[in-house]
Amino acid sequence: MAGDMFLYWGSGSIPCWKPMIVLEEKGFGGYKNKLISFSNKEHKGEDVLKLNPRGQMPTFKDGDIVVNESNAICDYLESTYKDKGTQLIPSDKAQRARALQRMHEANNNLQQKLMLDLLYYFFQTKEEDRKEEEIKKKAEDAREEMNRWEGYLGETKAFLAGSDFTMADAWFFPYLAFAVRMGMEIEKYPNLKAYYDRVCARPSIKASWPPHWKDEPAKNVPLKGLV
Amino acid sequence: MAGDMFLYWGSGSIPCWKPMIVLEEKGFGGYKNKLISFSNKEHKGEDVLKLNPRGQMPTFKDGDIVVNESNAICDYLESTYKDKGTQLIPSDKAQRARALQRMHEANNNLQQKLMLDLLYYFFQTKEEDRKEEEIKKKAEDAREEMNRWEGYLGETKAFLAGSDFTMADAWFFPYLAFAVRMGMEIEKYPNLKAYYDRVCARPSIKASWPPHWKDEPAKNVPLKGLV
Repeated sequence: MAGDMFLYWGSGSIPCWKPMIVLEEKGFGGYKNKLISFSNKEHKGEDVLKLNPRGQMPTFKDGDIVVNESNAICDYLESTYKDKGTQLIPSDKAQRARALQRMHEANNNLQQKLMLDLLYYFFQTKEEDRKEEEIKKKAEDAREEMNRWEGYLGETKAFLAGSDFTMADAWFFPYLAFAVRMGMEIEKYPNLKAYYDRVCARPSIKASWPPHWKDEPAKNVPLKGLV
Repeated sequence: MAGDMFLYWGSGSIPCWKPMIVLEEKGFGGYKNKLISFSNKEHKGEDVLKLNPRGQMPTFKDGDIVVNESNAICDYLESTYKDKGTQLIPSDKAQRARALQRMHEANNNLQQKLMLDLLYYFFQTKEEDRKEEEIKKKAEDAREEMNRWEGYLGETKAFLAGSDFTMADAWFFPYLAFAVRMGMEIEKYPNLKAYYDRVCARPSIKASWPPHWKDEPAKNVPLKGLV
């Protein structure tokens, strides 16, 4: 099975990291793959475009079946290989409801507040054009968002949907890890800190950790002192 | 089952419409519900906030189980009531892969190009501040996006994942219908036009059509002549 799979991916891309965690959790470690360079525009290369006309990462195939959207790959792997490796969507309906809710909350609300509103403001606005007041408001919203997740973990303790690692963790953790790399002061959130250490210890996370993060610290840490 | 369900929703909201289509397709028509008024800030009312601290629409419960994220409600309903009504996630893995891919493409790429980039530009930029060149570029991207979906339907004919209506249609159609309401010239896209008519004829769509769309035409049709 893993032998029929192929993933094109970029290092540090959250949409790539999510299905990479899922691939490891489902027991497909060692799948064939190609790390592409965004700066060399390899995601617009002929081999990628043949499978993924949008030229986006990730691009994935399992035998003849091509699935490219990050969340779709995750759902495809879990539904197709339900009995293999970690069960990522719980059978119990209340736990499943919680997992689904947290998956999509991470994908929508957390992505919005942390990435699109706050971090992209730093990435896309020149330093001299940034407004103190806007940063303050966006950071406040991002902190409020982080405190929600801090509260969720206060209820469930170990993982986001309960005592087991689920798809909710595979979808949430990459945002948290990116925030930490960008200077988030995670010690201020004790539940998130314990969760971060717990998830970091999983073999799936170690095996899929963005390689360039291991080699070099972030050049900028815009969240420092803010979140 | 429908008797234990309750949905808070807003008229014309795409995140609300998606699970409403699913509720009808799964055979839960007649579920209890409350149409809330955004302008009266009813989504921030005490009854909503008790179930959904974010105060967002939709807000849904099934007995004691609360699920609020639009996509999570859809997935919860399909996975919990798999054998009831229309099967929305195909059993065949190739068809399922296609359905999942199109669901998330609609949620990501189509939402981005049509709504966030183009329509929100009209909604959020004063007429005198709009730049002709920006509109031209955004409209070109939205047309390119619509042409992708036109092509997808050229391959599958009836519905997005094949001959049957699936979750991909429940996630895609509300964007298409909104685009048509906003002035999209759907006659220029023959596959999309046939698809639109086919989906409009479904009882689930008739039962969930935004009530204020029936009563009043859109005040503005920014997509006219553009998409």
